[in-house]
Amino acid sequence: MTFAPLSNDTFLRACRRQATDYTPLWLMRQAGRYLPEYKATRAQAGSFMGLATNVDYATEVTLQPLERFPLDAAILFSDILTVPDAMGLGLSFAEGEGPRFAKAVRDEAAVAALAVPDLDKLRYVFDAVTSIRKALNGRVPLIGFSGSPWTLACYMVEGKGSDDYRLVKTLMYSRPDLMHRILAVNADAVAAYLNAQIDAGAQAVMIFDSWGGVLADGCFQEFSLAYTQRVLAQLKRTGADGQDVPRIVFTKGGGIWLDDMKAIDCEVLGLDWTANLGKARAIVGGRAGGPGKALQGNIDPNVLFAPPAQIVTQVHAVLDSFGTPHTDKSTTGPTHIFNLGHGISQFTPPEHVAALVEAVHSHSRALRAKAA
Amino acid sequence: MTFAPLSNDTFLRACRRQATDYTPLWLMRQAGRYLPEYKATRAQAGSFMGLATNVDYATEVTLQPLERFPLDAAILFSDILTVPDAMGLGLSFAEGEGPRFAKAVRDEAAVAALAVPDLDKLRYVFDAVTSIRKALNGRVPLIGFSGSPWTLACYMVEGKGSDDYRLVKTLMYSRPDLMHRILAVNADAVAAYLNAQIDAGAQAVMIFDSWGGVLADGCFQEFSLAYTQRVLAQLKRTGADGQDVPRIVFTKGGGIWLDDMKAIDCEVLGLDWTANLGKARAIVGGRAGGPGKALQGNIDPNVLFAPPAQIVTQVHAVLDSFGTPHTDKSTTGPTHIFNLGHGISQFTPPEHVAALVEAVHSHSRALRAKAA
Repeated sequence: MTFAPLSNDTFLRACRRQATDYTPLWLMRQAGRYLPEYKATRAQAGSFMGLATNVDYATEVTLQPLERFPLDAAILFSDILTVPDAMGLGLSFAEGEGPRFAKAVRDEAAVAALAVPDLDKLRYVFDAVTSIRKALNGRVPLIGFSGSPWTLACYMVEGKGSDDYRLVKTLMYSRPDLMHRILAVNADAVAAYLNAQIDAGAQAVMIFDSWGGVLADGCFQEFSLAYTQRVLAQLKRTGADGQDVPRIVFTKGGGIWLDDMKAIDCEVLGLDWTANLGKARAIVGGRAGGPGKALQGNIDPNVLFAPPAQIVTQVHAVLDSFGTPHTDKSTTGPTHIFNLGHGISQFTPPEHVAALVEAVHSHSRALRAKAA
Repeated sequence: MTFAPLSNDTFLRACRRQATDYTPLWLMRQAGRYLPEYKATRAQAGSFMGLATNVDYATEVTLQPLERFPLDAAILFSDILTVPDAMGLGLSFAEGEGPRFAKAVRDEAAVAALAVPDLDKLRYVFDAVTSIRKALNGRVPLIGFSGSPWTLACYMVEGKGSDDYRLVKTLMYSRPDLMHRILAVNADAVAAYLNAQIDAGAQAVMIFDSWGGVLADGCFQEFSLAYTQRVLAQLKRTGADGQDVPRIVFTKGGGIWLDDMKAIDCEVLGLDWTANLGKARAIVGGRAGGPGKALQGNIDPNVLFAPPAQIVTQVHAVLDSFGTPHTDKSTTGPTHIFNLGHGISQFTPPEHVAALVEAVHSHSRALRAKAA
């Protein structure tokens, strides 16, 4: 496949720990319900899955936030639960209730029946990736994504969202053998899924370990991180256009395990707002000319409910906590990709997002100017 | 007041970093809905507040778990929201819905109206403390408790539980001056409340910062930890019987901030299951003969849904992660108080709790024997 050359590669450069003129940013769930134009398209589509499975709609909503804000990356519009849906568990979204599976995976027979799904069932996702990449026409890079093996397992066992993870943890503590089998299948499925997104045109991929942070120390390493690593080890390193494809891992609540995450084979670590970016940089960011990982994050999405002046103050605090990224274009070094620490709230005023984007770009330029 | 001498002071010794023959344990929410005898008393009382405000009922349910299990401490049966209730916010518990305030604190006028409540409105709590202490008759020590200033503020602003803390964080980011005023009043109220519990007979006190972990780095230190410290600085150091009163601080999700919590003026830090006790011990536990804090925690309450054999394995893992506590009775050193990392689930089988208690006591004795 051939695609238009990138006119803004700031995000990819930062993923690769290359110096950039400013700190690139994008926002988790940037295409979503806080945008009136998203709601309009969603109403046309009739349902969430109607939106996600239609290539034209998925392309349209993915590009919507870029029309409003000078963001530095686009992310595929989809859901993390498409993979278990393709495994035959029957995903649906009841209005105002969140996702639900018709079949939960809770006993030995259900676990034995799991297998890596036929990727043809996920063709709509790969078609959307190619369509979005073409529609972007080189404006900014396109990020593909998947849920982590553990996060998918949470939904597969619970059958829906949970506030105590009782069922999935009961299975994990009672029958670790069954949990390992679920996670192995999930890991191989996620790897195949992300590789197909890469073949379809994704320029970076992100693994969302949204529920890794609910695990106990020891269990996180054994049941989440090990399977994220199993995915990473199988990922293609080169995209449809011959460029390298950076891999981002985001574990909500994972800041306490940075020493462990330092060792995994990915280019970027995403952090939520509880982490201090300066301390995280000291642990995983590396030095100019040496190895390390780029960091992505981590402002509290609730900051966006404050007036613009307070948003600017908080943006400065996050950028300052990372400190000035390295600026030597002849080598690699510590870099930062600005993002929220979690998905944007549906109640966010869009004009507050504009204030945030402007503050990130202008203050990060000022930081570099001061350091020069 | 005079009370019977303690026949089991293992918990208090561990709080003071004194050597003990085994690792003491108690369980957060050990008096509660997983016990059929609790449900029976609760049914008699008619409502949760009917139970909590009646001295005889509160005494009865506090002692119930001790009749079943050889636990090493009792904790006052009450609720963390009694203080804002006494401030006039109108606490109620709708069946199956959790706590709710009739008046939420969301604007300048509501914040200005807040004041440290008349402690006479909380007389039922202090009477319960004295009644329980007498009923314990020296069997084990009695722990008093309160919510932290920040955790109380979450409920006061949201008006009820929340899954995104949008309202309280909007106030915090938009009007930090108002949030500081709420927190200052809360801190002084909590200090007076805990001091009255100490006067009534509490032998240790615990501050539950249940929602500190939802704050961003920087905000946690400014809006939660600073006000916990403001409480600690005002607490009486000596109880009704002339003994010192250890102070425990538990921040759910606070393991990432141990370097900050190290500095606060308390004897014990509680940890949830995401923390590694060995690493926490290295940061705050100190050495034999030197300063430090005792650690309390931190098994995942969901472990209790596994069969007893798996519970024993997980108990060993938690005790082993702390390592052998110091054993020299002539000095202080690193100690561990076993607990859950959060409150026990209402769905827990009581016989599984018995297996956990037995495993903690026997394996912690074995660890000491091996080290000797």
